[in-house]
Amino acid sequence: MRVLTGNAEVASTDRGLHYGDGLFETLRCQQGELPLIDAHLRRLSRGIERLAIVAVDLASIRSELSLYARHHRDADWIKLILTRGSGTRGYAPPQTTVPNLVLSHGNLPAAPERISVTISDVPLPTQPLLAGIKHLNRLPQVLARQAAADACYEAMMCDADGHIVCGIMSNVFARIDNQLVTPDTSQCGVDGVMREWVCECASVNVRTLTQDDLQRASELLLTNAVRGIVVVDDFEGRPMPAPSDATRDLITRAPVIYRSVA
Amino acid sequence: MRVLTGNAEVASTDRGLHYGDGLFETLRCQQGELPLIDAHLRRLSRGIERLAIVAVDLASIRSELSLYARHHRDADWIKLILTRGSGTRGYAPPQTTVPNLVLSHGNLPAAPERISVTISDVPLPTQPLLAGIKHLNRLPQVLARQAAADACYEAMMCDADGHIVCGIMSNVFARIDNQLVTPDTSQCGVDGVMREWVCECASVNVRTLTQDDLQRASELLLTNAVRGIVVVDDFEGRPMPAPSDATRDLITRAPVIYRSVA
Repeated sequence: MRVLTGNAEVASTDRGLHYGDGLFETLRCQQGELPLIDAHLRRLSRGIERLAIVAVDLASIRSELSLYARHHRDADWIKLILTRGSGTRGYAPPQTTVPNLVLSHGNLPAAPERISVTISDVPLPTQPLLAGIKHLNRLPQVLARQAAADACYEAMMCDADGHIVCGIMSNVFARIDNQLVTPDTSQCGVDGVMREWVCECASVNVRTLTQDDLQRASELLLTNAVRGIVVVDDFEGRPMPAPSDATRDLITRAPVIYRSVA
Repeated sequence: MRVLTGNAEVASTDRGLHYGDGLFETLRCQQGELPLIDAHLRRLSRGIERLAIVAVDLASIRSELSLYARHHRDADWIKLILTRGSGTRGYAPPQTTVPNLVLSHGNLPAAPERISVTISDVPLPTQPLLAGIKHLNRLPQVLARQAAADACYEAMMCDADGHIVCGIMSNVFARIDNQLVTPDTSQCGVDGVMREWVCECASVNVRTLTQDDLQRASELLLTNAVRGIVVVDDFEGRPMPAPSDATRDLITRAPVIYRSVA
């Protein structure tokens, strides 16, 4: 495994560039600490297995991440990209490859005053073999973000049946009849690290989420490993009710926070 | 637009690496000439429009390709990757970007004695906004190639309904009741340059192609811009009949050839 940081360049033969043949994780960094690193490494490990990327040492990735975080104590986030490495032309990976680990960091923008969310017209393709993992094939998200208005904090993406799957950069929770609901991610979408945390810390019903469900939800929440739990203020132009005590409690307990509840 | 050739490296902030946010074309090169360059540039242009990549000069790409081909007269193929360029973190493209054009070249492997083809279990996701164009989100093809036996020259990929869409690296034509048929590519798959040539030079019925259709086809053909038209000898372990005179004639007239008909 080759580790690249800072302004490092990547070989133009890298399969990450040619095919999106790799994975990524974006971790929240707080004073040089990475509170959700275990969950990130578990998901990364599932992705490595799914793509059959060889010669990866997860313990090394952990120590590289920790070292990088300590060296960039002012960073709010650290992103890792793990590619399969360089290859000759053709979809078949070479028998031996040297994966590339690319580390970068940055700071969060200030949270907007109101969190406005809409539903995207860009469908999320169904692909069970790639569902859940955080791979580098992200054009649907790029197209959805391009299509969304600048004022939109986030847009929810639907599968081919029009069911809600997740946001462009978040997982989605709806409180319906006082029950938290989140869509299943076995066919498309990402198994978010904060989604996992919420499912462990609260009673959550994982099921199909329709657009009608969202209309009758008393709360909509977005989760993201860097931003924690964010309450939606306006959904499709309609103001949402104030969040429940249960949600306020959840946000307070969450390991990372971006925007506190008013 | 920045042009990178040879062993050049790409900035680790390139959106091609982060999201597969870009396009590619692989052109056949014959003694420094690029016989299908017009069709490649037309498809590239459709991709640029679909992804809304800005600041691209197609005339420059054409002259860079021609120059590169003349400098690599022994190459059988030239590949271009066009990425949106570098970006800050996040799916939204920056207001201004400088696209990167990466050029590489190589030679074809010797054609196998028999062309054996199977059907892949890896589904091709439906995504009308990305269908037809040659974008960099190629993990389904990587997974399909990994899953196919080494002895398989090519594997056909199906959509979620089990209908044939294309091969991992080719478009598919079947001759059924003496009529050439090829699947529609408006929902997924690639509008191949050689597919376009065949559709212009022969009478082709563009329609849904089922797996049952393939079982009763008298011929199966694979098209690819670098390899031209290739006749399938064995499909799912079953030898196919000898190709028709019409197919022999088509292969002879094709602008590029990889493997002549026995």
